[in-house]
Amino acid sequence: MPRYAETGVFVALEGGEGGGKSTQSALLCEWLASLGHEVLATREPGATAVGAQLRRIVLDPATGALSPRTEALIYAADKAEHVDAVVLPALARGEVVVTDRYVDSTLAYQGAGRDVDAAELEHVARWATADLRPHLTVVLDVEPSVGLARAGSPDRIEAEPLTFHERVRAHFLSLAAADPEHYLVIDAAAPPQDVHAAVRAAVEPWLAQAGVRA
Amino acid sequence: MPRYAETGVFVALEGGEGGGKSTQSALLCEWLASLGHEVLATREPGATAVGAQLRRIVLDPATGALSPRTEALIYAADKAEHVDAVVLPALARGEVVVTDRYVDSTLAYQGAGRDVDAAELEHVARWATADLRPHLTVVLDVEPSVGLARAGSPDRIEAEPLTFHERVRAHFLSLAAADPEHYLVIDAAAPPQDVHAAVRAAVEPWLAQAGVRA
Repeated sequence: MPRYAETGVFVALEGGEGGGKSTQSALLCEWLASLGHEVLATREPGATAVGAQLRRIVLDPATGALSPRTEALIYAADKAEHVDAVVLPALARGEVVVTDRYVDSTLAYQGAGRDVDAAELEHVARWATADLRPHLTVVLDVEPSVGLARAGSPDRIEAEPLTFHERVRAHFLSLAAADPEHYLVIDAAAPPQDVHAAVRAAVEPWLAQAGVRA
Repeated sequence: MPRYAETGVFVALEGGEGGGKSTQSALLCEWLASLGHEVLATREPGATAVGAQLRRIVLDPATGALSPRTEALIYAADKAEHVDAVVLPALARGEVVVTDRYVDSTLAYQGAGRDVDAAELEHVARWATADLRPHLTVVLDVEPSVGLARAGSPDRIEAEPLTFHERVRAHFLSLAAADPEHYLVIDAAAPPQDVHAAVRAAVEPWLAQAGVRA
Protein backbone atom coordinates (compact mmCIF):
# COMPACT_ATOMS: atom_id res chain seq x y z
CA MET A 1 0.00 0.00 0.00
CA PRO A 2 1.39 3.42 -0.98
CA ARG A 3 2.36 5.32 2.10
CA TYR A 4 2.81 9.08 2.50
CA ALA A 5 4.49 10.50 5.59
CA GLU A 6 2.13 12.38 7.90
CA THR A 7 4.78 14.80 9.09
CA GLY A 8 7.46 16.44 7.02
CA VAL A 9 7.38 16.82 3.26
CA PHE A 10 9.08 14.42 0.89
CA VAL A 11 10.06 15.78 -2.53
CA ALA A 12 11.84 13.76 -5.23
CA LEU A 13 13.64 15.25 -8.23
CA GLU A 14 13.64 12.83 -11.13
CA GLY A 15 14.49 12.70 -14.81
CA GLY A 16 17.26 11.73 -17.18
CA GLU A 17 20.87 12.88 -17.28
CA GLY A 18 21.61 16.58 -17.55
CA GLY A 19 18.18 17.86 -16.47
CA GLY A 20 19.63 20.06 -13.75
CA LYS A 21 18.48 18.04 -10.72
CA SER A 22 21.34 19.19 -8.49
CA THR A 23 20.87 22.85 -9.42
CA GLN A 24 17.15 22.62 -8.71
CA SER A 25 17.74 20.75 -5.47
CA ALA A 26 20.06 23.54 -4.28
CA LEU A 27 17.60 26.31 -5.26
CA LEU A 28 14.67 24.51 -3.65
CA CYS A 29 16.53 23.79 -0.41
CA GLU A 30 17.74 27.38 -0.18
CA TRP A 31 14.18 28.69 -0.57
CA LEU A 32 12.78 26.22 1.98
CA ALA A 33 15.46 27.17 4.48
CA SER A 34 14.66 30.85 3.92
CA LEU A 35 11.08 30.04 4.97
CA GLY A 36 12.44 28.56 8.20
CA HIS A 37 12.03 24.88 7.39
CA GLU A 38 14.53 22.28 8.43
CA VAL A 39 15.70 20.90 5.09
CA LEU A 40 17.54 17.72 4.20
CA ALA A 41 19.06 17.46 0.73
CA THR A 42 19.83 13.87 -0.14
CA ARG A 43 20.16 11.54 -3.14
CA GLU A 44 20.11 8.03 -4.49
CA PRO A 45 22.27 6.13 -4.81
CA GLY A 46 24.93 6.85 -2.22
CA ALA A 47 23.46 8.91 0.63
CA THR A 48 24.59 6.49 3.37
CA ALA A 49 27.98 4.95 4.11
CA VAL A 50 26.91 1.59 2.74
CA GLY A 51 25.08 3.33 -0.11
CA ALA A 52 28.26 5.13 -1.13
CA GLN A 53 29.99 1.77 -1.48
CA LEU A 54 27.08 0.37 -3.49
CA ARG A 55 27.02 3.47 -5.70
CA ARG A 56 30.69 3.02 -6.43
CA ILE A 57 30.06 -0.57 -7.55
CA VAL A 58 27.20 0.20 -9.98
CA LEU A 59 28.66 3.35 -11.48
CA ASP A 60 32.27 2.20 -11.87
CA PRO A 61 32.93 1.29 -15.53
CA ALA A 62 35.38 -1.35 -14.22
CA THR A 63 32.43 -3.32 -12.80
CA GLY A 64 31.54 -4.38 -16.34
CA ALA A 65 28.32 -6.18 -17.25
CA LEU A 66 25.99 -7.10 -14.41
CA SER A 67 22.90 -9.27 -14.45
CA PRO A 68 19.92 -6.89 -14.63
CA ARG A 69 18.57 -8.42 -11.40
CA THR A 70 21.94 -7.81 -9.69
CA GLU A 71 21.89 -4.16 -10.63
CA ALA A 72 18.27 -3.75 -9.52
CA LEU A 73 19.00 -5.38 -6.16
CA ILE A 74 22.07 -3.22 -5.50
CA TYR A 75 19.99 -0.11 -6.12
CA ALA A 76 17.25 -1.54 -3.90
CA ALA A 77 19.74 -2.13 -1.06
CA ASP A 78 20.86 1.48 -1.32
CA LYS A 79 17.21 2.58 -1.14
CA ALA A 80 16.39 0.48 1.91
CA GLU A 81 19.24 2.03 3.87
CA HIS A 82 18.42 5.50 2.57
CA VAL A 83 14.76 5.31 3.59
CA ASP A 84 15.32 3.69 6.98
CA ALA A 85 18.40 5.61 8.11
CA VAL A 86 17.91 9.00 6.45
CA VAL A 87 14.50 9.79 4.95
CA LEU A 88 12.05 8.40 7.50
CA PRO A 89 13.83 9.84 10.57
CA ALA A 90 13.96 13.30 8.97
CA LEU A 91 10.28 13.21 8.00
CA ALA A 92 9.38 12.07 11.52
CA ARG A 93 11.15 15.20 12.79
CA GLY A 94 8.97 17.30 10.45
CA GLU A 95 11.75 18.16 8.03
CA VAL A 96 11.45 18.74 4.30
CA VAL A 97 13.43 16.03 2.52
CA VAL A 98 14.54 16.69 -1.06
CA THR A 99 16.03 13.67 -2.79
CA ASP A 100 17.91 13.67 -6.07
CA ARG A 101 16.42 10.42 -7.57
CA TYR A 102 14.20 7.86 -5.86
CA VAL A 103 12.11 4.80 -6.82
CA ASP A 104 11.06 6.20 -10.19
CA SER A 105 14.67 6.23 -11.35
CA THR A 106 14.82 2.50 -10.67
CA LEU A 107 11.57 1.90 -12.54
CA ALA A 108 12.70 4.05 -15.45
CA TYR A 109 16.34 2.96 -15.75
CA GLN A 110 16.13 -0.71 -14.84
CA GLY A 111 12.54 -1.33 -15.89
CA ALA A 112 12.18 0.59 -19.12
CA GLY A 113 15.83 0.56 -19.99
CA ARG A 114 16.91 -3.01 -19.33
CA ASP A 115 15.57 -6.48 -19.73
CA VAL A 116 14.05 -7.19 -16.32
CA ASP A 117 10.47 -7.98 -15.31
CA ALA A 118 8.88 -4.61 -14.56
CA ALA A 119 6.36 -5.89 -12.02
CA GLU A 120 8.99 -7.76 -10.01
CA LEU A 121 11.35 -4.82 -10.19
CA GLU A 122 8.69 -2.53 -8.77
CA HIS A 123 7.78 -5.05 -6.11
CA VAL A 124 11.39 -5.14 -4.91
CA ALA A 125 11.83 -1.35 -5.02
CA ARG A 126 8.60 -0.82 -3.08
CA TRP A 127 9.60 -3.39 -0.49
CA ALA A 128 13.04 -1.79 -0.18
CA THR A 129 11.47 1.60 0.54
CA ALA A 130 8.65 0.31 2.77
CA ASP A 131 6.45 1.73 -0.03
CA LEU A 132 7.12 5.29 1.13
CA ARG A 133 6.11 7.71 -1.66
CA PRO A 134 7.14 11.33 -2.20
CA HIS A 135 4.39 13.86 -1.65
CA LEU A 136 5.66 15.45 -4.82
CA THR A 137 7.89 14.17 -7.60
CA VAL A 138 9.31 16.76 -9.96
CA VAL A 139 10.31 15.33 -13.33
CA LEU A 140 12.92 17.56 -14.96
CA ASP A 141 12.21 16.58 -18.52
CA VAL A 142 14.90 16.96 -21.15
CA GLU A 143 15.64 15.52 -24.60
CA PRO A 144 18.24 12.78 -23.99
CA SER A 145 20.54 14.10 -26.72
CA VAL A 146 20.55 17.52 -25.02
CA GLY A 147 20.81 16.17 -21.48
CA LEU A 148 23.67 13.80 -22.23
CA ALA A 149 25.64 16.55 -23.94
CA ARG A 150 25.23 18.65 -20.78
CA ALA A 151 26.20 15.80 -18.45
CA GLY A 152 29.79 15.55 -19.72
CA SER A 153 32.08 12.52 -19.29
CA PRO A 154 29.80 9.45 -19.05
CA ASP A 155 29.65 6.95 -16.16
CA ARG A 156 28.54 3.33 -16.69
CA ILE A 157 24.84 4.27 -16.97
CA GLU A 158 25.29 7.44 -19.01
CA ALA A 159 27.33 5.45 -21.52
CA GLU A 160 24.22 3.47 -22.58
CA PRO A 161 22.96 4.17 -26.14
CA LEU A 162 20.53 7.01 -26.87
CA THR A 163 17.57 4.63 -27.35
CA PHE A 164 18.03 3.49 -23.73
CA HIS A 165 17.77 7.07 -22.51
CA GLU A 166 14.72 7.64 -24.71
CA ARG A 167 12.93 4.68 -23.10
CA VAL A 168 13.93 6.07 -19.68
CA ARG A 169 12.44 9.46 -20.51
CA ALA A 170 9.17 7.96 -21.77
CA HIS A 171 8.89 5.95 -18.56
CA PHE A 172 9.25 9.02 -16.32
CA LEU A 173 6.57 10.81 -18.33
CA SER A 174 4.16 7.89 -18.09
CA LEU A 175 4.60 7.67 -14.31
CA ALA A 176 3.82 11.36 -14.04
CA ALA A 177 0.78 11.11 -16.31
CA ALA A 178 -0.68 8.34 -14.13
CA ASP A 179 -0.63 10.36 -10.89
CA PRO A 180 -0.97 14.10 -11.53
CA GLU A 181 -1.68 14.85 -7.86
CA HIS A 182 1.84 13.83 -6.91
CA TYR A 183 3.80 14.77 -10.03
CA LEU A 184 5.03 17.89 -11.74
CA VAL A 185 6.69 17.66 -15.15
CA ILE A 186 8.85 20.63 -16.09
CA ASP A 187 10.67 21.38 -19.32
CA ALA A 188 14.23 21.41 -18.05
CA ALA A 189 15.35 23.40 -21.08
CA ALA A 190 13.68 26.45 -19.49
CA PRO A 191 15.88 28.92 -17.57
CA PRO A 192 16.75 27.49 -14.10
CA GLN A 193 14.95 30.32 -12.27
CA ASP A 194 11.74 29.61 -14.21
CA VAL A 195 12.01 25.92 -13.40
CA HIS A 196 12.61 26.84 -9.78
CA ALA A 197 9.52 29.06 -9.65
CA ALA A 198 7.35 26.22 -10.95
CA VAL A 199 8.83 23.83 -8.38
CA ARG A 200 8.15 26.31 -5.57
CA ALA A 201 4.53 26.67 -6.61
CA ALA A 202 4.08 22.90 -6.61
CA VAL A 203 5.82 22.35 -3.25
CA GLU A 204 4.02 25.16 -1.46
CA PRO A 205 0.68 23.40 -0.84
CA TRP A 206 2.46 20.53 0.92
CA LEU A 207 4.36 22.69 3.39
CA ALA A 208 1.37 23.08 5.71
CA GLN A 209 1.86 19.50 6.83
CA ALA A 210 5.50 19.85 7.81
CA GLY A 211 5.39 18.99 11.50
CA VAL A 212 7.90 21.59 12.68
CA ARG A 213 7.33 25.13 11.48
CA ALA A 214 9.45 28.20 11.67
CA MET B 1 7.62 -21.73 -9.58
CA PRO B 2 10.49 -23.83 -8.20
CA ARG B 3 12.86 -24.71 -10.96
CA TYR B 4 15.40 -27.55 -11.08
CA ALA B 5 18.08 -27.63 -13.73
CA GLU B 6 17.60 -30.39 -16.31
CA THR B 7 21.30 -30.85 -16.93
CA GLY B 8 24.05 -30.80 -14.36
CA VAL B 9 23.57 -31.35 -10.64
CA PHE B 10 23.22 -28.53 -8.16
CA VAL B 11 24.19 -29.27 -4.55
CA ALA B 12 24.05 -26.75 -1.70
CA LEU B 13 25.84 -27.11 1.61
CA GLU B 14 23.99 -25.27 4.35
CA GLY B 15 23.99 -24.88 8.12
CA GLY B 16 25.30 -22.65 10.87
CA GLU B 17 28.86 -21.57 11.61
CA GLY B 18 31.50 -24.24 12.23
CA GLY B 19 29.60 -27.13 10.61
CA GLY B 20 32.47 -28.00 8.30
CA LYS B 21 30.93 -26.85 5.03
CA SER B 22 34.26 -26.08 3.38
CA THR B 23 35.78 -29.42 4.40
CA GLN B 24 32.74 -31.27 3.08
CA SER B 25 32.72 -29.23 -0.11
CA ALA B 26 36.35 -30.17 -0.75
CA LEU B 27 35.75 -33.88 -0.05
CA LEU B 28 32.62 -33.96 -2.23
CA CYS B 29 34.28 -32.17 -5.13
CA GLU B 30 37.31 -34.44 -4.98
CA TRP B 31 35.10 -37.53 -5.11
CA LEU B 32 33.01 -36.15 -7.98
CA ALA B 33 36.12 -35.30 -9.96
CA SER B 34 37.45 -38.82 -9.35
CA LEU B 35 34.26 -40.11 -11.03
CA GLY B 36 35.09 -37.97 -14.05
CA HIS B 37 32.56 -35.19 -13.50
CA GLU B 38 33.30 -31.58 -14.24
CA VAL B 39 32.90 -29.97 -10.83
CA LEU B 40 32.47 -26.34 -9.84
CA ALA B 41 32.98 -25.45 -6.17
CA THR B 42 31.43 -22.11 -5.37
CA ARG B 43 29.91 -20.15 -2.50
CA GLU B 44 27.66 -17.34 -1.35
CA PRO B 45 28.31 -14.58 -0.78
CA GLY B 46 31.30 -13.56 -2.84
CA ALA B 47 31.74 -15.94 -5.81
CA THR B 48 31.76 -13.16 -8.44
CA ALA B 49 33.77 -9.95 -8.68
CA VAL B 50 30.80 -7.84 -7.68
CA GLY B 51 29.80 -10.44 -5.10
CA ALA B 52 33.23 -10.20 -3.47
CA GLN B 53 32.68 -6.47 -3.00
CA LEU B 54 29.19 -7.05 -1.59
CA ARG B 55 30.51 -9.76 0.73
CA ARG B 56 33.13 -7.36 2.04
CA ILE B 57 30.42 -4.82 2.86
CA VAL B 58 28.13 -7.17 4.81
CA LEU B 59 30.84 -9.06 6.68
CA ASP B 60 33.05 -6.10 7.61
CA PRO B 61 32.48 -5.17 11.28
CA ALA B 62 33.19 -1.53 10.25
CA THR B 63 29.94 -1.49 8.27
CA GLY B 64 28.03 -1.32 11.54
CA ALA B 65 24.27 -1.67 11.83
CA LEU B 66 22.31 -2.04 8.60
CA SER B 67 18.58 -1.99 8.02
CA PRO B 68 17.47 -5.65 7.81
CA ARG B 69 16.07 -4.97 4.33
CA THR B 70 19.42 -3.48 3.24
CA GLU B 71 21.25 -6.58 4.35
CA ALA B 72 18.73 -8.89 2.68
CA LEU B 73 18.97 -6.97 -0.59
CA ILE B 74 22.78 -6.99 -0.62
CA TYR B 75 22.73 -10.76 -0.19
CA ALA B 76 20.08 -11.00 -2.91
CA ALA B 77 22.24 -8.96 -5.32
CA ASP B 78 25.13 -11.34 -4.68
CA LYS B 79 22.82 -14.28 -5.43
CA ALA B 80 21.49 -12.83 -8.69
CA GLU B 81 25.00 -12.43 -10.05
CA HIS B 82 26.06 -15.84 -8.73
CA VAL B 83 23.16 -17.67 -10.35
CA ASP B 84 23.27 -15.86 -13.69
CA ALA B 85 27.03 -15.66 -14.17
CA VAL B 86 28.26 -18.82 -12.44
CA VAL B 87 25.69 -21.45 -11.49
CA LEU B 88 23.34 -21.57 -14.50
CA PRO B 89 26.11 -21.59 -17.14
CA ALA B 90 27.89 -24.46 -15.34
CA LEU B 91 24.69 -26.49 -15.01
CA ALA B 92 23.92 -25.88 -18.69
CA ARG B 93 27.33 -27.42 -19.47
CA GLY B 94 26.34 -30.49 -17.45
CA GLU B 95 28.66 -29.76 -14.54
CA VAL B 96 28.12 -30.59 -10.89
CA VAL B 97 27.91 -27.34 -8.94
CA VAL B 98 28.59 -27.44 -5.20
CA THR B 99 27.80 -24.21 -3.41
CA ASP B 100 28.77 -23.31 0.13
CA ARG B 101 25.50 -21.54 1.17
CA TYR B 102 22.55 -20.58 -1.00
CA VAL B 103 18.98 -19.27 -0.57
CA ASP B 104 18.34 -21.19 2.65
CA SER B 105 21.09 -19.24 4.40
CA THR B 106 19.24 -16.05 3.56
CA LEU B 107 15.96 -17.46 4.82
CA ALA B 108 17.59 -18.75 7.99
CA TYR B 109 19.89 -15.84 8.83
CA GLN B 110 17.81 -12.87 7.71
CA GLY B 111 14.38 -14.42 8.11
CA ALA B 112 14.63 -16.37 11.34
CA GLY B 113 17.43 -14.36 12.77
CA ARG B 114 16.41 -10.76 12.12
CA ASP B 115 13.32 -8.67 12.11
CA VAL B 116 12.23 -8.76 8.48
CA ASP B 117 9.07 -10.06 6.84
CA ALA B 118 9.80 -13.71 6.01
CA ALA B 119 7.45 -13.95 3.03
CA GLU B 120 8.86 -10.80 1.40
CA LEU B 121 12.39 -11.93 2.12
CA GLU B 122 11.77 -15.26 0.41
CA HIS B 123 10.06 -13.52 -2.51
CA VAL B 124 13.15 -11.37 -3.10
CA ALA B 125 15.61 -14.25 -2.70
CA ARG B 126 13.61 -16.41 -5.13
CA TRP B 127 13.42 -13.59 -7.65
CA ALA B 128 17.15 -12.98 -7.29
CA THR B 129 17.89 -16.62 -8.07
CA ALA B 130 15.25 -17.02 -10.81
CA ASP B 131 13.79 -19.56 -8.35
CA LEU B 132 16.53 -22.06 -9.20
CA ARG B 133 16.61 -24.76 -6.49
CA PRO B 134 19.38 -27.20 -5.61
CA HIS B 135 18.66 -30.82 -6.47
CA LEU B 136 20.05 -31.58 -3.05
CA THR B 137 20.68 -29.41 -0.02
CA VAL B 138 22.88 -30.87 2.69
CA VAL B 139 22.33 -29.30 6.11
CA LEU B 140 25.42 -29.77 8.25
CA ASP B 141 23.71 -29.55 11.59
CA VAL B 142 25.67 -28.48 14.65
CA GLU B 143 24.87 -27.04 18.09
CA PRO B 144 25.55 -23.30 17.78
CA SER B 145 27.71 -23.24 20.91
CA VAL B 146 29.92 -25.98 19.43
CA GLY B 147 29.96 -24.54 15.91
CA LEU B 148 30.83 -21.01 17.00
CA ALA B 149 33.70 -22.27 19.15
CA ARG B 150 35.05 -24.07 16.07
CA ALA B 151 34.63 -21.04 13.81
CA GLY B 152 37.21 -18.92 15.63
CA SER B 153 37.43 -15.11 15.42
CA PRO B 154 33.91 -13.81 14.64
CA ASP B 155 32.86 -11.68 11.65
CA ARG B 156 29.84 -9.34 11.78
CA ILE B 157 27.31 -12.22 11.50
CA GLU B 158 29.11 -14.68 13.76
CA ALA B 159 29.22 -12.01 16.47
CA GLU B 160 25.43 -12.18 16.89
CA PRO B 161 24.21 -13.64 20.21
CA LEU B 162 23.71 -17.39 20.69
CA THR B 163 19.89 -17.10 20.53
CA PHE B 164 20.24 -15.71 17.00
CA HIS B 165 22.23 -18.76 15.95
CA GLU B 166 19.70 -21.06 17.62
CA ARG B 167 16.88 -19.55 15.58
CA VAL B 168 19.01 -19.94 12.46
CA ARG B 169 19.56 -23.61 13.20
CA ALA B 170 15.86 -24.28 13.83
CA HIS B 171 15.04 -22.62 10.51
CA PHE B 172 17.42 -24.84 8.53
CA LEU B 173 15.91 -27.91 10.16
CA SER B 174 12.37 -26.85 9.37
CA LEU B 175 13.24 -26.21 5.71
CA ALA B 176 14.72 -29.69 5.51
CA ALA B 177 11.73 -31.30 7.22
CA ALA B 178 9.36 -29.72 4.70
CA ASP B 179 11.07 -31.20 1.61
CA PRO B 180 12.78 -34.52 2.39
CA GLU B 181 13.26 -35.38 -1.30
CA HIS B 182 15.70 -32.49 -1.73
CA TYR B 183 17.30 -32.32 1.72
CA LEU B 184 19.74 -34.31 3.79
CA VAL B 185 20.39 -33.36 7.42
CA ILE B 186 23.65 -34.65 8.85
CA ASP B 187 25.02 -34.42 12.37
CA ALA B 188 28.13 -32.36 11.72
CA ALA B 189 29.64 -33.54 15.00
CA ALA B 190 30.27 -36.93 13.32
CA PRO B 191 33.76 -37.64 11.92
CA PRO B 192 34.25 -35.81 8.58
CA GLN B 193 34.67 -39.05 6.62
CA ASP B 194 31.34 -40.37 7.96
CA VAL B 195 29.63 -37.11 7.01
CA HIS B 196 31.23 -37.35 3.58
CA ALA B 197 30.00 -40.92 3.07
CA ALA B 198 26.42 -39.84 3.83
CA VAL B 199 26.71 -36.89 1.43
CA ARG B 200 28.03 -39.19 -1.32
CA ALA B 201 25.13 -41.58 -0.88
CA ALA B 202 22.65 -38.72 -1.17
CA VAL B 203 24.32 -37.11 -4.20
CA GLU B 204 24.74 -40.36 -6.14
CA PRO B 205 21.14 -40.75 -7.38
CA TRP B 206 21.27 -37.29 -8.98
CA LEU B 207 24.44 -37.88 -10.97
CA ALA B 208 22.65 -39.78 -13.75
CA GLN B 209 21.22 -36.49 -14.97
CA ALA B 210 24.52 -34.67 -15.28
CA GLY B 211 24.56 -33.81 -18.99
CA VAL B 212 28.25 -34.46 -19.60
CA ARG B 213 29.66 -37.75 -18.33
CA ALA B 214 33.18 -39.04 -18.11
